[in-house]
This record gives sequence, structure tokens and C-alpha cells, in this order.
Amino acid sequence: MSELHATSIRLQDLGIDRTTLLIDERRARANIDRFAARARASGTVLRPHFKTHQSATVGDWFREAGVTRATVSSLGQAAYFADHGWDDILLAMGVNPLEVAGYSALAARVRLGLLTDNATTIAAIGAGLSQPVSLWLDVDVGYGRTGVAWKDTETLGALARAAGTAPALRLAGLLTHAGHSYHDQDAADVFASSLHRLTACRDALASSGIGPLAISAGDTPGFAAVDLWTGLDEARPGNFVFFDLMQLVAGACTAGDLACAVASPVIGVYPDRNQVVIHGGAVHFSREHLLEQQGASFGRLLTLGPDGFSDLLEGWSLVSLSQEHGVLEARGAGAQSELQTLQPGDLVMIAPVHSCLSCEQFTSYRTLDGTRIQRYRRD
Amino acid sequence: MSELHATSIRLQDLGIDRTTLLIDERRARANIDRFAARARASGTVLRPHFKTHQSATVGDWFREAGVTRATVSSLGQAAYFADHGWDDILLAMGVNPLEVAGYSALAARVRLGLLTDNATTIAAIGAGLSQPVSLWLDVDVGYGRTGVAWKDTETLGALARAAGTAPALRLAGLLTHAGHSYHDQDAADVFASSLHRLTACRDALASSGIGPLAISAGDTPGFAAVDLWTGLDEARPGNFVFFDLMQLVAGACTAGDLACAVASPVIGVYPDRNQVVIHGGAVHFSREHLLEQQGASFGRLLTLGPDGFSDLLEGWSLVSLSQEHGVLEARGAGAQSELQTLQPGDLVMIAPVHSCLSCEQFTSYRTLDGTRIQRYRRD
Repeated sequence: MSELHATSIRLQDLGIDRTTLLIDERRARANIDRFAARARASGTVLRPHFKTHQSATVGDWFREAGVTRATVSSLGQAAYFADHGWDDILLAMGVNPLEVAGYSALAARVRLGLLTDNATTIAAIGAGLSQPVSLWLDVDVGYGRTGVAWKDTETLGALARAAGTAPALRLAGLLTHAGHSYHDQDAADVFASSLHRLTACRDALASSGIGPLAISAGDTPGFAAVDLWTGLDEARPGNFVFFDLMQLVAGACTAGDLACAVASPVIGVYPDRNQVVIHGGAVHFSREHLLEQQGASFGRLLTLGPDGFSDLLEGWSLVSLSQEHGVLEARGAGAQSELQTLQPGDLVMIAPVHSCLSCEQFTSYRTLDGTRIQRYRRD
Repeated sequence: MSELHATSIRLQDLGIDRTTLLIDERRARANIDRFAARARASGTVLRPHFKTHQSATVGDWFREAGVTRATVSSLGQAAYFADHGWDDILLAMGVNPLEVAGYSALAARVRLGLLTDNATTIAAIGAGLSQPVSLWLDVDVGYGRTGVAWKDTETLGALARAAGTAPALRLAGLLTHAGHSYHDQDAADVFASSLHRLTACRDALASSGIGPLAISAGDTPGFAAVDLWTGLDEARPGNFVFFDLMQLVAGACTAGDLACAVASPVIGVYPDRNQVVIHGGAVHFSREHLLEQQGASFGRLLTLGPDGFSDLLEGWSLVSLSQEHGVLEARGAGAQSELQTLQPGDLVMIAPVHSCLSCEQFTSYRTLDGTRIQRYRRD
């Protein structure tokens, strides 16, 4: 029996009959444990970003690994995790002054951290918050998306002093997202440079009498590339819980670390063009893609063994996506002969390019014992 | 007051305080009425694809325009619209044999149409369905995604005869999605060629004693480009209800037809690089983009006037997206001077590149009188 056929039978035995996001819990827990151990060895608090999974159950796996602080990217996610017992939550998305009432309501329930890079927002929330929050200043260490440039300690100092005049704001520290580790260069270099810049920035502010300030960074490629994070107070990577093809290509994980995949039914087989069409499209994988020699790839085939996900299957690529359809292509003799064993009604399992965006498309996940686990849904 | 500032105030007056999908109901109804009138004039039944909006309320707008048949792309969507009074539903996605029990349950409640292009599936549902359904054969008229090639009447004849032996299957017709109208060539040419090929295919099958068969096609660019659809039995365009930037670029609509947009809070303003960062990312816009001279664009600014959406604002583009962040760039003196009027806490309104994928990211929409309208959510 081909690996693909065996995988289809195993998936059907789990009760899967439609497009479903699967989590290999053993792999996800191993990823969590590895990063939690690094944080402990470094004397750094792991405050993982929960935007990747957005699931209370996966949050429990983190808690069992000793994690007690969480990062989220929306007020809705923060409220969801507060409802599920998390009492120290950082909303690492620039404050939206229109939601100040929501921040106050949440800060009445949990230790809430907020983030901004501008005086307008500090004035608005300083005046509007009815509950104290921790305020982090967003520092740009080179990514260029948000934040005050790390060398601009004059602006950062002014923001710190403005925060100091607002009774509801307790200045907590300096925070960065070094997202350029995904694109530009060696991720370990980005990590080292981010840590250096945050530290220099903190020290410069300290010499003006501002502080003590904690420093926080968090991007999966950087934190995967470096074993010890010593010097950093808080670490906020998130994607590492599941990883994905983008991280694999970036060298942040091995294929054996990939912990989520999308099971998709085959609805058509086209041997003359070496393609299979699945019910699995942009609304399941997102349109995030890798550029490979042969063109764009939106995913790659995994198989399911008796102990969980196995390795990527060579010679297959998800080459195009419509809203609900995906086209899987077999390249090379091995894959093309496996294609002959597929037929409509089979299930295939595909590793997504970007797990955060793929998970966001689902309202629940399944683990490999068939359990359905819930996740946050936006209103 | 700048247009942008006036828009922000109007949006706040509607009670918008976070990233929200807005529908201009007047524009959407005008789009519906225009397509419904074309169908009537053509003697063609409009069976619009509801995958774009997936909302019972928007479905009601179609019903008020005389539409009684619907197209959907998943069993879940079909059940949702059945729950909301639609009793003639075509699931225009290749049948998944694993869901045969679900098809039977639905077919007990509504006239259900199913689609396939292969004998394996016909055998599986022929044996498995407990309720009669209408079966459409998927014909490829040039898109090359799914379907039997339109010239291969031998295979189509064999499928028709196989369906004829299954008591639960009533052969309804030949169906195509001419998705190449989005990419390759003149959309009116694609429409004409699709109609010609479907007709020729039907006639060839009729001469072998198969039929009578209806013919059905549906892609928004083709149906927007051609005023009269005469000769076609059913028309299934869907995107036209809201249109989007992709359709605008393809010439399928004017800027005045764009009927959905994403209101997003500004969280940071960066005049030195002519950029604004919003809470509005890949999880709101999808990662669908247009390639423009200056690079990728994920959306463009609209303003909100007293009567609804106004025109696109020149000089602005949504140039990059992370999971929850978007970067808006002002190009040229006009836009750069408008940028000076923005601050965190303002709301901007952005037309998405692909409305189907952007709508899919939300669990409800708002109309411009502030009403929240529900949409289907996957389990």
C-alpha cells in the first residue's frame, strides 16, 4: 500500500471527512518544551505569542511546560485567554485609542500589558484608562514596520516621561519585533543585533534616569537560531509551536518539527497532467506561498504514520489555489506513480506555508486521537 | 477638513471602533439588480454564487431582486442557506464522496444539485445517496482546473450513462467555471468561447441520445463583460455583488461599484517614511495582491461620504501586510499632505483586492446604517 493511501485510511479512521486542520500534539509539545527549556537556561521569561494557535487547549500545553505569561495581538484574543485562566497578558499590537474602554475592562481582570510608539496614544489612554496597565514602548531595531528607531532615545525618553505623568500607566519596558529575521539575513545575526540595540537603548534611557526597564523581543527565526537568550527579560516567539514550511526554508526547524497540517479530500484526479484537485483552497491555506524553482508553492504533502506526522513527501507541491480548490502536482516518477493510487474520496495531508495564517482560517482543530480542540473566533 | 478625517468621523459615528468589514448596501443592491436584469433580458436563470458574501441578509437582497436559486461551495454553506429559506441549491464544488450522508440529509430538505467529473464519485454517490439529487457534469472549457475536456464527449457520455443507472441521480446538465477570464484574455471572448463550447458539447451528447441537458457557467469577469447571456440556461457569477480591486483592474466594474471595504484603526503614523500602520492585516485582507508599478498592493483607500462609499483616493496603497498589521503608503504630494492629518485613533477604509477572501475573514459585516449582518461560519 502506498504511503498516501495508508495516510488516507488513517485519516478516515480518525473520523475526518472534510477539510480539517490537524495538530500533532506530541510534536507541538516537544516544540514548546524545547523553547521553554531554552528560556529557563537563559534566565529569560518565555511569554509566547498565542496568535499562532489562539486555542485554550494549546495554551494549556504551554502552562504544563511552566509558561504563565502570554502575548496576543488583539483585544478579543486577550479576553479569550483571560476567560481561560491567563492572568498576565501582553497585547503586542499598537494600542487602538478607540478601544480604551475594552482595555480598562480587561485590565480589571488581568495584568495587562499594552504597546505604543507615540504620544497621541499615550495621552489618549493615559486620560481614558480606568485601570492600571503596564506600558511597553515599541522600539524599531531594524524591521521598519512600527516603533521608534532604537537610536532615537530622545523620543523614547519623551514618551517615557509622558507615560510617567499618567497614573494608569506603569512603564514596563522596551519591546521589539525583529521581523526582518524572516527575510533579510542570518536570523542569529538579527537576534544578536536586536539584543544589542535594545540593551543599548535601555542603558541610554537609564543614564537619563528612566527605568529600570525590561527588554522584550520575539520572532521565531531569531529565537530558533540562538540557544541562549541571556540578557533578554522576555521572549515572545509564537510560530514555533507548530512551525511551517516558511520556517523550514528559513532553517528555523526541521521537517520533523512541523506540527500542523490540513487534511483535505481529493475531489478529482488528472493523471494526464499529473495533478490532483482537493477541497482545500485559499480559505484553508491562505495565499501565503513560497517561490520555488518551478513556481509558487502553497504547501507540501505530509504522511501520517502510526506515531503521528511523518516526513514531507518528496515530489509533491500545492501549486495553485482558488477560494476553495487546491491543485496538487506530482513531479518526478515516484510521485507520479503514487498519484495513480489516489482517487476521489481519499484524504491527503498538507503542511501549510504559514501556520499562523492557515490556523486563522479554522474555527477548531483536531489532534491525532480525534479530539476536537476549540480556538478563539473573532465576533 | 480632509476627506480622510471626515471619513474617520463618519465611521466613528457608526460605532466602529475596531477592524470591521463594511458593506455599502445601496451599491450591492444596484450590482444585484443590474445582473438580475441582464439575466431576465437573456432568458437565463441567475443562480448566483453565494461564496462571496455567505450571508443570509445579503441572500435576502438577492431574493428581493427575484432570485430563487443559489450556488455555494461547501456543504456547510449549503446547510446554512437551507436554514435561511433557500430551497434550490447547487453545490458547485466537486463532490467529496466522504460526505455522502451530509448530501442525503440536505437533499431531504431542498432541491440539491451536485457536481462531479469522474466515475468513481458517480459510483460512490449513486450507491450511497438516500435522496435524489440533480447531478451536473463538470466540463473544462479552457480553465484547466477541474472538469472533463469539452471535446471529450466520449468520457462525458460514459459519465452521463453511469449517472443514468443510479436511481438517486437525475442528470441535470453541463457546468463550467471559466476561471481563465480572470487572467488570460478578453473576458467577453472567454464568455463567448465558453458558451460555444458548452453548447457544442451539449449538442454532441444530444446526438448520442443523452439529454436534454441544461448548460451553466459563471465567472464574474465574463458575465460583467457581456450584456446578454442568451443561450445559457443558468448563470452563476458571484463576486459581482461586492466587486473588488481585482475586478476593477480587469475592467469588470467601476470604482463606483465597489461595495465592500475594511474599516481599520490607525495605530501609528510615520511621516518621515510617508506611511501609516493600521490594525488590519493578512487575517482581514487575505494576502491576495495586485502587482503595480511600485510593487504589491493589498488594498486602496476609499472615503465615506454622506450617501455611502465614495471614490478611491488616489496616491494611497496598502503596501505590506503582516498577520494583523498593514502598512499604508502615501505617494505624491496630495496623499502625503493628507497623511499629516491622520493620527492613532483615526479610522481608514480600504477596498480589498479580492472581496471573497476578505469577507471570508470576518464572522459578520456592518452596513452603513450601523446594522450588523451575520454570515456563515465554518464549524
